[in-house]
Parts: sequence; structure tokens; C-alpha cells
Amino acid sequence: MAFSPLTKTDIDALIRIAGKDAIFTSEEIRKEYGHDETEDLNFPPEVVVKPESTQIVSAILNYCNQHAIPVTAIGARTGLSGGALSVFGGVGLSLERFNRIIEIDEKNLQVTTEPGVITQVLQEAVIEKGLFYPVDPSSRGSCTIGGNLAENSGGPRAVKYGVTKDYVLNLEVVLPNGEVIMTGANTLKNSTGYNLTQLMIGSEGTLGIITKAVLKLWPYPAQNVLMLVPFFNATKACEAVSAVFREGIIPSAMEFMERDAIDWTLRFVDGISIPIKDEVQAHLLIEVDGNDLDMLYKEAEKIAAIMERFECDEILFADTAEQKEALWKMRRRVGEAVKSNSVYKEEDTVVPRYELPRLLEGVKCIGEKYGFKSVCYGHAGDGNLHVNIIKGDLSDSDWNEKLPMGIREIFELTVALKGTLSGEHGIGWVQKNYMDIAFPQVQIELMRNIKKVFDPNGILNPGKIFPDNNN
Amino acid sequence: MAFSPLTKTDIDALIRIAGKDAIFTSEEIRKEYGHDETEDLNFPPEVVVKPESTQIVSAILNYCNQHAIPVTAIGARTGLSGGALSVFGGVGLSLERFNRIIEIDEKNLQVTTEPGVITQVLQEAVIEKGLFYPVDPSSRGSCTIGGNLAENSGGPRAVKYGVTKDYVLNLEVVLPNGEVIMTGANTLKNSTGYNLTQLMIGSEGTLGIITKAVLKLWPYPAQNVLMLVPFFNATKACEAVSAVFREGIIPSAMEFMERDAIDWTLRFVDGISIPIKDEVQAHLLIEVDGNDLDMLYKEAEKIAAIMERFECDEILFADTAEQKEALWKMRRRVGEAVKSNSVYKEEDTVVPRYELPRLLEGVKCIGEKYGFKSVCYGHAGDGNLHVNIIKGDLSDSDWNEKLPMGIREIFELTVALKGTLSGEHGIGWVQKNYMDIAFPQVQIELMRNIKKVFDPNGILNPGKIFPDNNN
Repeated sequence: MAFSPLTKTDIDALIRIAGKDAIFTSEEIRKEYGHDETEDLNFPPEVVVKPESTQIVSAILNYCNQHAIPVTAIGARTGLSGGALSVFGGVGLSLERFNRIIEIDEKNLQVTTEPGVITQVLQEAVIEKGLFYPVDPSSRGSCTIGGNLAENSGGPRAVKYGVTKDYVLNLEVVLPNGEVIMTGANTLKNSTGYNLTQLMIGSEGTLGIITKAVLKLWPYPAQNVLMLVPFFNATKACEAVSAVFREGIIPSAMEFMERDAIDWTLRFVDGISIPIKDEVQAHLLIEVDGNDLDMLYKEAEKIAAIMERFECDEILFADTAEQKEALWKMRRRVGEAVKSNSVYKEEDTVVPRYELPRLLEGVKCIGEKYGFKSVCYGHAGDGNLHVNIIKGDLSDSDWNEKLPMGIREIFELTVALKGTLSGEHGIGWVQKNYMDIAFPQVQIELMRNIKKVFDPNGILNPGKIFPDNNN
Repeated sequence: MAFSPLTKTDIDALIRIAGKDAIFTSEEIRKEYGHDETEDLNFPPEVVVKPESTQIVSAILNYCNQHAIPVTAIGARTGLSGGALSVFGGVGLSLERFNRIIEIDEKNLQVTTEPGVITQVLQEAVIEKGLFYPVDPSSRGSCTIGGNLAENSGGPRAVKYGVTKDYVLNLEVVLPNGEVIMTGANTLKNSTGYNLTQLMIGSEGTLGIITKAVLKLWPYPAQNVLMLVPFFNATKACEAVSAVFREGIIPSAMEFMERDAIDWTLRFVDGISIPIKDEVQAHLLIEVDGNDLDMLYKEAEKIAAIMERFECDEILFADTAEQKEALWKMRRRVGEAVKSNSVYKEEDTVVPRYELPRLLEGVKCIGEKYGFKSVCYGHAGDGNLHVNIIKGDLSDSDWNEKLPMGIREIFELTVALKGTLSGEHGIGWVQKNYMDIAFPQVQIELMRNIKKVFDPNGILNPGKIFPDNNN
């Protein structure tokens, strides 16, 4: 792929299309929009454009398509795979002005929203109506619905409620040639032609620009019970996870944290104190939710009995809303805490949940072989383990040259366990050269040809998802 | 599209590939495989092939792809949109020998199955392990998983548990050139490249042949409560549906039946007798399920109170397993009963659930305008209304020439209500010329180009999904 630098003519055209106050070319702003939360990478776009309507997005894409200008959609820049980085420069298309919740449809339990709405803002708006949008990535206070759609984000409650893709009924999408389509219908069921809605979700801005989404809601569950379970053995903690489901219980969250993850977080986050015995190696944070508190207590007791079979220590039940909030705050900020400590790389491995102990042990074993330390945590109920690899004392050359081989081994193990590279962060820029581990060449070629159907000139988020070696 | 008739050389080649006992050319068998449950249509393939392994399917496709021979996948022939009809002749590829449940993975709550397994057989096999595959089309006793995947089938429990697409983790697919891919991974979450799994589901055999599926299971809910609610006014029955969700209850089934639907079924099905007052216009069949019977009774009481607000008559609670089975049997056989009465056409309209009363009234109104009678029933909780149009006294010319205009008006109404053409039956052969109502030309073209990526020679199920007028 090769793109020419933007010319003054291009900038003038963009100003004509989007208005002067939508165009930003200062180095400072371009740098600001050149990074997300992926390592310390920065790829500034040549110009940041902040359109405020579908019509303007359509005109921008149409212009860029005709002039072979790369367009990278940018949300809240909380991504963890570099999906929003303008690696080929061009236009950084920020959807931040698409920040309206268009309609909360209480009669049909649906919400129509623009993509720039912050996930937590949407959640709180629907809770006010007694409704529930359960997808809550740890970054929900800052990430946007658009980014969640682009990466098919998950979060703790995916184990019971599913991920972003499970809530999307219909999308307004601008295609590279400027045409605007609705991918589906505002219905719970749909067997009408190919499922373009699902094809868009998780496509990381490479097929079209999402400008509106119709999402399914549930009634808001009135009650929940939250418990923190310490384990003396991290592998046993992982094993306990499957046992809960086998007893017929579907928790609304089931999170795993290694010892280090909690220790670092308690040091990093103010106002939370949890006494942890020296021998404790890992924790599970388990939530059940529903409308009937008595039934939830019964379930929690059953879960506690299961945990004891796996040699846990004394279980902490969160009694008050404040305690619950403190535990969730701790869990949500693990990533940030671990990363504040060192240069890092984060992998988003996912396996069938029973394989989690084998994945965890394998990661540690590979770490020993290559000399890196890792802090692991994540959504144990889904088999989704975030592996934070810490640079620590590793030399730059080992970090840059040997580590990729170690990561390759982690992914090979993941795929051997019938898992895959990413559960909820996407492939983006940093995982693309591992795609050959998950897919044979023929399948990568299929995906590449689907991309060409939507985006024949390759302007949308070039350099993402597809490996370099077979461009 | 034009295909040459099969030659003796082709048949000999197929015999070499699949073995003599896998090839059927008698007129009787070809006719048997030339129909499904869609009206009285019959399009026999030129040869029926019953392969028994992925390798053989691969070799058949590879041969047919090289020789431009149409290949139509055939399941149990219970389809309602003509998806399995060999409208261009060629090979009718029956997957009936793919009838093994490969593995019930109790540790990960997954089942790996071949597509020829009957849905109910799969359900009962996993229930024995305490597990639940909730997708239960009315034809579950005869339809197969492969057909369910092809059409993205639903059923009564979709309202709580979702449709086929919500249970598929991974698919083995043979592409037209004979290549075999796994579309995803055996994981609950996946953000690794484009979602080819979801693209395959509901693609009605036009993109590839599914030879294996990995499906998600839930723990089997131990208890349920079932009630039949009679209404004096069909519109009020529809209105009651949304109210239940607004009170925070998610029923595991919420079925709507017009008066005629029940009357005809009671006459058609032996051994069920339900006294129905003359003034009753419609029924809702409502189920709640879970593990705690006390809680379900509480929910059922709440539902009953809601129903009364919509002027229902006395509610019948099914007290025994036999009563429940009788009510379900009645519901499942409505389609068959209605169709046994007359020549018919069935539409599978779906709208946001609150719009159901408007859809029902509109259908009746359009029927009056065009002089046809309709019997309506379906999955009210999902807004999915099956409209059975009865030929009755309609002249052949009105049936063939005027009725399509009436159906067009029904679909236009459906789409105006933010719904779409098919909720769970697919587009197949009989709905394809209404696709322009749901999608603009640019979008149909996108889908057509996706089809070309998978199937450049157009051998897979030609003549389906895409409208005739822009081939």
C-alpha cells in the first residue's frame, strides 16, 4: 500500500465539505489523535476531521475514495489493538460529535444511538428507564459505542449477557463511495439476506463507517450479589470456573485476577483496601444478578460451596453498594495499574473456558523460556485471559526481537486449545502478523476479498487486520 | 444464469467421487428431493448425492465448480421459503448422512455436531447431560441443524434465548473450490478478523456447505410454568405482549394464535381438547422458565395481572407435563393444520414487537382489499408474525396475479414499521422478488458481490435470495 501525502487542495476540499471548525491540522491535535491505549504507539493522521452528520461523513468518504486518501475512524482512543491508529496518515475521522442518544424506545426495548456516545452514558440513560445495556468494557467510562462496535467489545457481563454483537439489531453505515445503508432491521430476528450487521461488527473500521446503531435492551435486573473468592492456587481458581456452570448457575460476571494484578491495583487505586494473605495466588470476582434477592442468595451459597471444593480461602461478600463499587473499581482498573508499572504488551487470548488453567500455565511456561514476566487477569467465565507482558528488566533487543517469538508461542498454544487470538480487543495493528496462526491463507484471502467488495480502493483503515506478508 | 444439463460423464465422475450407493437418479427419488414444505413447489435435482464425509463433499464441490454444475444443499426438506429446491437442477446435495453428534463437551458447555442431526435429537441428547440447546423450530422433530443454520431458524424460545445464530461458535465449511475452512474458534468471544461464522448463518447454502458445527449450550433450566391466555380482542392480545417486558419479565416463550389457528388445529390434531368461548378472538401461550419454581409462580402471577389489564378471559395454567405437552403440540402443529385446509402461501413477517398490533390489523386490511383470507400466528415476543394466506375461493388468476401485489403491500407495511421480510424462514425462492422492499439496489449488489467472493462461478444454490430483475 502506498498513499500520497495530502495536498493543500485536499485540505481545502475537506474544509468545504465539513466546515472549517471540523478540520484540525496542528501537530498537537494530530498527535493527540494518533494514539489509543495500545502500548506507546503514536501514528498521527495528517488531518483530524470531526464531522457532525452522516451526510458530511458520506461526502468525506466520497472525496477520499476518489483521491485515494486513507480514512481511519477514531472513537475515544481507548482501544487495545491499535485499531484507531492512522498508520498510513490521511484523515483521522473522529466520530466524537456523533454523541446523541437518538431514542430510547421503551415500548420495544431498543435504543437508537450515535456511535460517539460513551458506553457508560448510554447505560445510565437506559437504566433511568428501567432498561439494561449489559455490555460493559472496563473502559466503559471513557470508551464509546462506536469503538465497541468496531472491536466487538465484551466485558465482565459477557459471560451471561453476551458481547456487543449480541445487542446490535441494525446499523447505519457509510460505505467508502459515500452510499449510506441500513444493514438490517429493528427486529430481534432477521433471516433476510446476508447478515451485514454482524459482518460490520468487529471489522475495525475497515468496511464502512458506522454512524448510527440500533441496540437491543433487556429489563434492568433489580438485584445482584457480588463475592470475592481468594485461592491459594491460581490453576484451581481457573478450574472452579467451569464447575459453576456445570451446577446450572450462570453468573453475571466471573472475573479472574492473578495475585500481582490485585497487588498492583491496590497500590495504584486510592481508597480501596482489601487484606490479602501472603499465600493467596489468585482471586475470582463473581456476581449473580436477577430480580429475586432470595434466589440470588441461594445461588451465591451454591457457588460458595463449589468454590470450597477448589480450596479457596474465606469468601468476601460485598454487603453494600459502596463495597460492590470498590470491588468493581479494583477490577476495572487492573489493566491501567499493571501498565502504569512498566512498558508492556497486552494480548487478549481466548479459549474454551475449561482450557483456561492450561492456557495460564502455558503462558507462564513460555514466559520462563523467553525470560518475560506476565500479569494475567480477565473474563474467566468466557475463557478470555488478558496477558500483560511486562518489559521489566528485559533488554530492548530481547523485547523487540525475541518477545514476538514468545507471543507467537502463546497464540499457537491458544489456537491448539481451540481458542483464538482476540476475544474482545480486535486484531488491529499489533496482532495482525499473528493472523496466520488462526487462519489458513485461503481464509485470510476470503476476508481480504470481502474487504475489497466494500472498499475496492482500500482507503478504510489500511494496514489493519491483514498480515503484512501477503498484501 | 444458464446451466447445461448433467452428462453421463458427470454422473460417472460423481459415482467415482462419492461411491455408487451415494448417487440417486431415479425420477421418484429426484422428485422426493425436489420439494420442501414451501407451498406445493417441486424442483427436482438432476441427481441426488448423499455424501458421508467432508472430503467427499469437497471433491464433489470441486468437480461441480470446474464443470459449472449447480449444487443445492438439502436438509430435512422442512423449509418454508424454498431454500432447498433445486430450481436449476444439477446436484441435490443431501446432508442426511452427516447425522452424528460428534461430541457433547460437558466441561465447556458445547456440542460439536454434523448438520444432518435432527434438532430434537440433538436437544434430547444434551438434556441427558443436563444441558440445553434452546432453539426449537416448530418442525424440531424433523428439521435438521444444517437447515436451521442455513435459514437462521428461531422458534418459540427465541424471545428469551435467541435464534440459531446466537448459538454458533464455529463452523466447518466447504467452499465451492473444495477448500475446507473453520469459520471461527470454539470460544464464546471472538474479535479475530471478519465474522465469517455469522455471514454463513442464514446464507441459505449460497456461500458454502456446512459440514460441522460447534454450538453453545446452557445449563438446562429445571422448571417452567406454562399458561394459555384467551383474549376477546386480537389487537389487545398483541398489546399485552410488550407490557410483560416493560414489567421486567422475560418469558421463555410468548406465542400468539388467532382464533382460526386454534380452531383448525383442534380439528386437525387428535387428543387435545380445549374449550374456547365463542367470543374469544386470540390466545397467547406464555412460558417462563428457570431453576426456582416459587419464583416462576411469582412471575406467572405478575404476568396474569398484566394480561387482565388487556381484557383477557380466564387463564388456563398447565398443571402437568401432559397438559404442557398438549398445549405445545397444539402450537407446533398450527402451521400444518392451517395448510391442510387449503392451498396457501406463508409469509414470515417480523417487526419490533410493539408494532405487532399494527401489523396484524394491516394484514387484515390488505386482505380485505385484495379479497384474501389470512390466518396469523407466531412468535409475538419477537414481533414475528407468520401470515398464512389461504387460497379458499380465490380464482387462480387472482391468486397468481393479484395476490403478489397484496403480499408486496404486506411487506411494505412490515418495512415501514421498521421490520423486515423474514424473521426465521429465510428468503429462498419465494420471497426473493420482494428483496427490493427491504434493501436498496446498492445493498443487494453488496450481497451479490460477497456471494461472488465465495462462489465466483455461481454454483451454490443459484436462483435464491437475489431478485430476478437484476441478475
